[in-house]
Amino acid sequence: MNKSRLEAFSDGVLAIIITIMILEIKVPEGHEFADLKPLIPKFLSYVLSFIYVGIYWNNHHYLLHGLSKVNGKVLWSNLHLLFWLSLIPVSTGWMGEHNFEKASLALYGIILLGCAIAYIILQKIVLDVEGKDSLLQKAIGKDFKGKVSAILNIIGIGTSFFNEYISGACYVIVALLWLVPDKRIERVFDSNN
Amino acid sequence: MNKSRLEAFSDGVLAIIITIMILEIKVPEGHEFADLKPLIPKFLSYVLSFIYVGIYWNNHHYLLHGLSKVNGKVLWSNLHLLFWLSLIPVSTGWMGEHNFEKASLALYGIILLGCAIAYIILQKIVLDVEGKDSLLQKAIGKDFKGKVSAILNIIGIGTSFFNEYISGACYVIVALLWLVPDKRIERVFDSNN
Amino acid sequence: MNKSRLEAFSDGVLAIIITIMILEIKVPEGHEFADLKPLIPKFLSYVLSFIYVGIYWNNHHYLLHGLSKVNGKVLWSNLHLLFWLSLIPVSTGWMGEHNFEKASLALYGIILLGCAIAYIILQKIVLDVEGKDSLLQKAIGKDFKGKVSAILNIIGIGTSFFNEYISGACYVIVALLWLVPDKRIERVFDSNN
Amino acid sequence: MNKSRLEAFSDGVLAIIITIMILEIKVPEGHEFADLKPLIPKFLSYVLSFIYVGIYWNNHHYLLHGLSKVNGKVLWSNLHLLFWLSLIPVSTGWMGEHNFEKASLALYGIILLGCAIAYIILQKIVLDVEGKDSLLQKAIGKDFKGKVSAILNIIGIGTSFFNEYISGACYVIVALLWLVPDKRIERVFDSNN
Repeated sequence: MNKSRLEAFSDGVLAIIITIMILEIKVPEGHEFADLKPLIPKFLSYVLSFIYVGIYWNNHHYLLHGLSKVNGKVLWSNLHLLFWLSLIPVSTGWMGEHNFEKASLALYGIILLGCAIAYIILQKIVLDVEGKDSLLQKAIGKDFKGKVSAILNIIGIGTSFFNEYISGACYVIVALLWLVPDKRIERVFDSNN
Repeated sequence: MNKSRLEAFSDGVLAIIITIMILEIKVPEGHEFADLKPLIPKFLSYVLSFIYVGIYWNNHHYLLHGLSKVNGKVLWSNLHLLFWLSLIPVSTGWMGEHNFEKASLALYGIILLGCAIAYIILQKIVLDVEGKDSLLQKAIGKDFKGKVSAILNIIGIGTSFFNEYISGACYVIVALLWLVPDKRIERVFDSNN
Repeated sequence: MNKSRLEAFSDGVLAIIITIMILEIKVPEGHEFADLKPLIPKFLSYVLSFIYVGIYWNNHHYLLHGLSKVNGKVLWSNLHLLFWLSLIPVSTGWMGEHNFEKASLALYGIILLGCAIAYIILQKIVLDVEGKDSLLQKAIGKDFKGKVSAILNIIGIGTSFFNEYISGACYVIVALLWLVPDKRIERVFDSNN
Repeated sequence: MNKSRLEAFSDGVLAIIITIMILEIKVPEGHEFADLKPLIPKFLSYVLSFIYVGIYWNNHHYLLHGLSKVNGKVLWSNLHLLFWLSLIPVSTGWMGEHNFEKASLALYGIILLGCAIAYIILQKIVLDVEGKDSLLQKAIGKDFKGKVSAILNIIGIGTSFFNEYISGACYVIVALLWLVPDKRIERVFDSNN
């Protein structure tokens, strides 16, 4: 079973997800700079989601790089992850359209949590294929960052009903956590290749 | 003739089909959770179609994996399959927009049947190229699942005029039939590679 | 210079062009079969354009298969072809929306002619790179089909101002001409590989 | 770390960006040739942006061709470039919708400048990976064209507040500068491969 088509299909879907989000930012009707003002929340939510999809692409890249064999479980858990990621544009649009209103922040968090759980499942399945002594297992270790992200996500969802700022801050912190490239994985693979 | 471009183009089209369906789910106008309620049928029809396109990608992956030579017939029967698959987003949108109304269920079934027939044609052409004693022929066997799916599809179309639930159930059962990874194909290839 | 990225990028653009055309077919507002009736001209124009883009992908596939070296001229004449092809969805939508009205048929023909000329230019540049004695040159020969297509295209544009049926027939005949796989190219390459 | 997925993902995003711009050109409501007239500024802005994205794809192609190792910095600076490029369709649409009004020309220039700066950053990071004596460093040299482009971009933004023609001319000149294939890079690589 060849891994390259799995990667190509995932790259295609991720490339489309990251790009169609821009379609939520409609061309403003007026022609003054002031007409761009209502686009600001949309733009900010676009930036945040762009970073999130970028992070998932990045991690997906590393994860599949360490995979040596594709089976049915890997294919479907990968599609499951892509499904959750495909919901990001709609919830990003809702959040931007309504200026980070409580419900839209909660929904955004729920979808991010869905993505995080789907990623953890995919990672578990890939690790099952590779075995406990694999390079990938060493690289991922206890997946501290993954767990912290999921917890921050849940806090973001919970607080979204009371305070938009705390909730938004949670989502931004998760993004920043991952924006820093994962030195662990790079280090382990570099020292072995 | 190189197979990789055929796969790359098909992956591209399938990735776009699976992702643009989300564009049918428009951002709700209100900002309360209650405003998401009308999106439920759209979401459910999206989930169903996502699974269907995923299944076709999966099967297409296995089918072309077993193909050794590309010719004009393969190219055109592949495009024919992609054509039918490209109609899924519109009929999914119609079904979701009108809460699984009779006519929309019938149209959805007709398009799924078109996809199924196009797939059977492509499979036949690939098998003609590979020959009767090929691994692929052994893996596919009598294509029991493919035939059952087509029959359930036809039942779904027929019953859609009388009862939406039976019709919908047919389409869901077909999806579930395929969601279980095709052990046969995996087994045959694994034991030979 | 690697050819694979040129192919990958072209495949991506062609896959998107062939798929976004379906976005011109908007979900009908009613939920009866009768509500699908106004979609018929849109559907027919979609089928025609799908075949055209499929033909271009097919021919592009063969043409680049015979290319051994990529240079700046190839890159830009390829982009030039993609530009013309990218205009197909809009003119397809216009033609479908207005039931094959005279002006929309003329515009469609102009864009098809643009594609045909862009393809001839790309072909010439590829042949210049490969040389007169190349396999590709033999396979293409005098490009009889290409010339007939361009002439039929021009007739289609000219007649569109008087009679929609003759004009439409010209475009359909060109599509049918190419739908038959190009035996010449396949034969020459097959006998040499 | 494999470069091919980075290229595939970038190709996917660039292919989508270059193609979704066409979605800003909505099908005209009337069915006469005269109804196409309001589309002219949209079409012109589409042509300009198509060329710009084509240039970036071209240069990106050459730049990554000379890259031998992918690391986290390369991944993120590449995503950063894709982010700026993804903003081109919206600003193109705004410019076309409002007939090259002052504010829309300024915004277009700002986004082009963002792309140019992002490209310079990516180039710097790639050169850091490759080292001062690399072929790529020789090929790029002092990046005269890159610097002139950035300056013309800034002039375009500044003049957009006073005179649309001078501003637009700046953007067109930058595009023409790059449309001529970069002989330097081709020459250096050709003489070494």
